[in-house]
Amino acid sequence: MNLVIDGGNTFIKTAVFQNNRLLEKQVFLKKDFFENFENLQKKFPAIRKSILSSVTSLDSDLENALKKSYSLLQLDDLVALPFKNEYATPHTLGKDRIALVAAAVNTYPGKNVLIIDAGTCITYDLKTEDEVYLGGAISPGLEMRFKSLHKFTANLPLVTPKPAPKLIGDSTESSILSGIINGIEMELKGTIKSYDSKFEDLTIIFTGGDSQILSIPLKNSIFANSNFLLEGLNFILEFNKTQ
Amino acid sequence: MNLVIDGGNTFIKTAVFQNNRLLEKQVFLKKDFFENFENLQKKFPAIRKSILSSVTSLDSDLENALKKSYSLLQLDDLVALPFKNEYATPHTLGKDRIALVAAAVNTYPGKNVLIIDAGTCITYDLKTEDEVYLGGAISPGLEMRFKSLHKFTANLPLVTPKPAPKLIGDSTESSILSGIINGIEMELKGTIKSYDSKFEDLTIIFTGGDSQILSIPLKNSIFANSNFLLEGLNFILEFNKTQ
Repeated sequence: MNLVIDGGNTFIKTAVFQNNRLLEKQVFLKKDFFENFENLQKKFPAIRKSILSSVTSLDSDLENALKKSYSLLQLDDLVALPFKNEYATPHTLGKDRIALVAAAVNTYPGKNVLIIDAGTCITYDLKTEDEVYLGGAISPGLEMRFKSLHKFTANLPLVTPKPAPKLIGDSTESSILSGIINGIEMELKGTIKSYDSKFEDLTIIFTGGDSQILSIPLKNSIFANSNFLLEGLNFILEFNKTQ
Repeated sequence: MNLVIDGGNTFIKTAVFQNNRLLEKQVFLKKDFFENFENLQKKFPAIRKSILSSVTSLDSDLENALKKSYSLLQLDDLVALPFKNEYATPHTLGKDRIALVAAAVNTYPGKNVLIIDAGTCITYDLKTEDEVYLGGAISPGLEMRFKSLHKFTANLPLVTPKPAPKLIGDSTESSILSGIINGIEMELKGTIKSYDSKFEDLTIIFTGGDSQILSIPLKNSIFANSNFLLEGLNFILEFNKTQ
């Protein structure tokens, strides 16, 4: 049984996997982690291995707690990966993006896959049918765009995201909603079209916290999966057992 | 002869018009304005009227200097406009957007016009063939997107904009360039397409400081014009002479 931990800036996500199957997923505020960690240990005594992916400089308390109970794999640029990485600067490749590509290899082996993660940033990542990771793109996330209009101008308010705004806003709020939400949806649609014309039989995964509020034309080849990143981390852990 | 002044946060643009014709355009740092204002007065003694549009709370020194020499029209939400304004919150409508719509009425009367201004923000504004302004959209500008990725994340660098990045970035820098530049171009293309399908025989004006670095498919109906905003301010000044 595996424990997968995805540490963000303020939240920590935990997931328990048995044989590639997600048994339980939880999200905690970082400060509440240790309280919940004890409960998790009691509930799943069969956990033996763990993987930790953290965006911030590693939290040594968290690290030590995991090491004390389990064997721990820390995701860094030295960990063996289940794909060929053609990123020119692997040491600057985000851990989230690594995990997402691993998940694509696990779930769609032998397929061209574009993974779109709509989170703090919107990331686009492409792995080919030969299990080669080529790279992709990074653009500002939904919330970041709302924040930036407010922070970097003198007069614009901080608007709360709402789905499906009309095209023509007739107030500052509705103009911003149209510009950002419709703008991102056009970016998504255009990007999917560009990749689709370059990669045969392309599968598209749409994941991340903002994938609910954003709508893209879901065709046969487009799948929403909110656990994709956690599944990828689990796959990297499994892959490293056999290395 | 008219003096048109467009005051931004750090820069002031001046333009001298005679009979709708732009004679001279200049850009100063705000702090250097008065020095250059004297030269301008000497060079164009025939100036009689002026219009001031300022994004910041009005600069009383600037205002007084203009009032001393010329009759001054300050652009605010009480000024008579050469179009019907259907914006629901006219007091929050940006002065830039008002000037751009006025320019569209002046240059393309009787036409449906979408004005795209790629500046600090990207604004989209639509005036109909009946000279009615319907509103539009606001999204973060090019530089703002680069700044936000750096400011609102722990690990991403501030990247310098470059035109025409490849689709698949294979480093952090090229990923960000692709995400932002290609992302905006897809937003522009998608937005133009949406308006085009709603408004017959649509004319599109592409203006603003970043219209150079961004490329959109320039068809017969799409025009680039870097003086559009200044032309709009001059038209509002002319329009108010006759009110």
